[in-house]
Amino acid sequence: MSVTQPKGFRAAGVEAGIRTGERPDLALVVNDGPQHAAAGVFTRNKVKAAPVLWSEQVLATGRLRAVVLNAGNANACTGPEGFQTAHATAEKAAELLECGAVEVAVCSTGLIGSQLPRDNVLGGVAAAHAALGADAAAGLAAATAVLTTDTVPKEAGHADPAGWSIGGFTKGAGMIAPSMATMLTVVTTDAVLDAPALDAALRSAVRVSFDRLDIDGCMSTNDTVLLLASGASGVEPDPEAFTAALRDLCKDLARQMQADAEGVTKRITVRVAGAATEDEAVTVARTVARDSLVKTALFGSDPNWGRIAAAVGYSDAQVDPDRIDVTINGVQLCRGGVAAADRSAADLKGADVLVEIGLGLGDGAAEILTTDLSHGYVEENSAYSS
Amino acid sequence: MSVTQPKGFRAAGVEAGIRTGERPDLALVVNDGPQHAAAGVFTRNKVKAAPVLWSEQVLATGRLRAVVLNAGNANACTGPEGFQTAHATAEKAAELLECGAVEVAVCSTGLIGSQLPRDNVLGGVAAAHAALGADAAAGLAAATAVLTTDTVPKEAGHADPAGWSIGGFTKGAGMIAPSMATMLTVVTTDAVLDAPALDAALRSAVRVSFDRLDIDGCMSTNDTVLLLASGASGVEPDPEAFTAALRDLCKDLARQMQADAEGVTKRITVRVAGAATEDEAVTVARTVARDSLVKTALFGSDPNWGRIAAAVGYSDAQVDPDRIDVTINGVQLCRGGVAAADRSAADLKGADVLVEIGLGLGDGAAEILTTDLSHGYVEENSAYSS
Repeated sequence: MSVTQPKGFRAAGVEAGIRTGERPDLALVVNDGPQHAAAGVFTRNKVKAAPVLWSEQVLATGRLRAVVLNAGNANACTGPEGFQTAHATAEKAAELLECGAVEVAVCSTGLIGSQLPRDNVLGGVAAAHAALGADAAAGLAAATAVLTTDTVPKEAGHADPAGWSIGGFTKGAGMIAPSMATMLTVVTTDAVLDAPALDAALRSAVRVSFDRLDIDGCMSTNDTVLLLASGASGVEPDPEAFTAALRDLCKDLARQMQADAEGVTKRITVRVAGAATEDEAVTVARTVARDSLVKTALFGSDPNWGRIAAAVGYSDAQVDPDRIDVTINGVQLCRGGVAAADRSAADLKGADVLVEIGLGLGDGAAEILTTDLSHGYVEENSAYSS
Repeated sequence: MSVTQPKGFRAAGVEAGIRTGERPDLALVVNDGPQHAAAGVFTRNKVKAAPVLWSEQVLATGRLRAVVLNAGNANACTGPEGFQTAHATAEKAAELLECGAVEVAVCSTGLIGSQLPRDNVLGGVAAAHAALGADAAAGLAAATAVLTTDTVPKEAGHADPAGWSIGGFTKGAGMIAPSMATMLTVVTTDAVLDAPALDAALRSAVRVSFDRLDIDGCMSTNDTVLLLASGASGVEPDPEAFTAALRDLCKDLARQMQADAEGVTKRITVRVAGAATEDEAVTVARTVARDSLVKTALFGSDPNWGRIAAAVGYSDAQVDPDRIDVTINGVQLCRGGVAAADRSAADLKGADVLVEIGLGLGDGAAEILTTDLSHGYVEENSAYSS
């Protein structure tokens, strides 16, 4: 249930003094091998944080010895000085681990637009290196040190009967949108896999997990998902079994982010079927998931399917207004574009809301996870600089 | 300052019993000629309300004798029965005005997905016809009868020294997004203009006024802007002068909608310059104007330019992260993609916020009007079924 669950990994989380308050804010994850294959997926935002620029470069080698992560400062919009800080961070870890800086990825999350306190970061790397452990407590310490507005650490794991395992943590509570959430995710495995196999599995898993989580439509500058393989189990996994397990683990982590999102009072699944293609199903589901009027209605436990139909109608997908069906928590409220039942028939008192939309056009289906738009979201994001 | 300001128009607003509470909810605007040229622009939502389907059809003739508008029910997602109600509404007005139903446009706003009480609407049309007046009070009564969550009626007028005038009203407070707001707008003029000239002037004006207002990114099923010309002044206006006056009037009405938007505490102008094209400037400005994290930060009077830079970065426009400048209320906080001043230097205590974004790529410029995302917006839209 953590990045230290697979054999060959150590982790640590320490207080480096990057953010105010006595909270851990720097994590280190080390792959002790024997192999060091790795893959990564990054934000598609054109404004990329310095650690993203650094880590994308590093991942070109398909090889990682370690990852340094910090919370409290995104090191984004920080220019050459910010990039030098990311580089210096990797250099420091490399020196301690006796490897090259090019084998160390760096991830940051927090406020955009101010310089990271470099000395604090470098001191934190040294402290984390001294604190490295291979047990579950060490994995949890790392998962805890990267949290920002998250209220709980988010870990997941899978032990395969074939003898290999996967573990991971993630963070992210706001600025969560397509092309990944504002999130940092580290997944480890002791399976024997090379970098191209890891890359293929990771892209396949991210496409239907993190990329289908959309809390507030705001794409971050820092999104990073890293997958590190130590090969320490000595087992070459069945590629399909590995990809399936990785996908399930990423979905598990995505669901944990949904449940801990800023201001969440409803965990909403928007499921679209009958679209012309899967991509169009994603487009419709995402448009509904982002619609402020749908999100505020669900916050108010109001099964306002008319707002859902309106959002379907302005999506960039093919839609026939006379074929739209809307079912909320199992009660069909709209059939063929008109009312099918009194809206009060749908019960939204619980925390989970399933919105099912039928388009009646084809076989395309997809679902997006989102949350409601609540007073808590407004409060957190108007009062907290991040 | 109203639709009755131009010669040749009468208007009325009455209580038809369409919505609960004793409030006027049906308006009638009549063009007494001698000419009856007209133009209209409608929502681009694929889910169009019955009155939009009806009025689009009617406008194909370039001619309108009257417009019936109601609040309290959108007559959207109401199928053939809803369309018959829109048709019957036009028939009723036509009977009273001794014209054809095809000369009467219909507009509705309110809850989506329930049938309009047809008898109440037809009774309301008769009552409004009996109450028609040509004075400012009659124009105000019509402007008042179409309000939903709006708190004030919104009217504008222009008397041209050349002898013609324009007047108009609008409504709209939420579900306000590109391709027009959830809004109904009626503009009248006594200038002598034919339908093609009106159409060209209206499209040109809407493109830079209502289409540049984006309160919550939610495109309505009912958006309608109608322009009616009576020719009663006997004056053929200079086409450019007329278009300019119409554009200014539409901008005035759009600004009134911004100032009265649901939950507004800040009136925000997002102005983009240096984009590759005007369209790309609109794209960037709209992306920033819709970003929930930018909107909540401004609600909190926090000049969080990092969130603005992140939104610029995920817009669908060409962006060079190292050329982005951000200035808030006159204080440059970001230059070339990095901090240029302490954010506290920008004062956001007032109700007006000007966000200026420079992209340094070309001559494309545009601005979008929006508002903050406040507790009031969440409250209104979670508690009110509309």
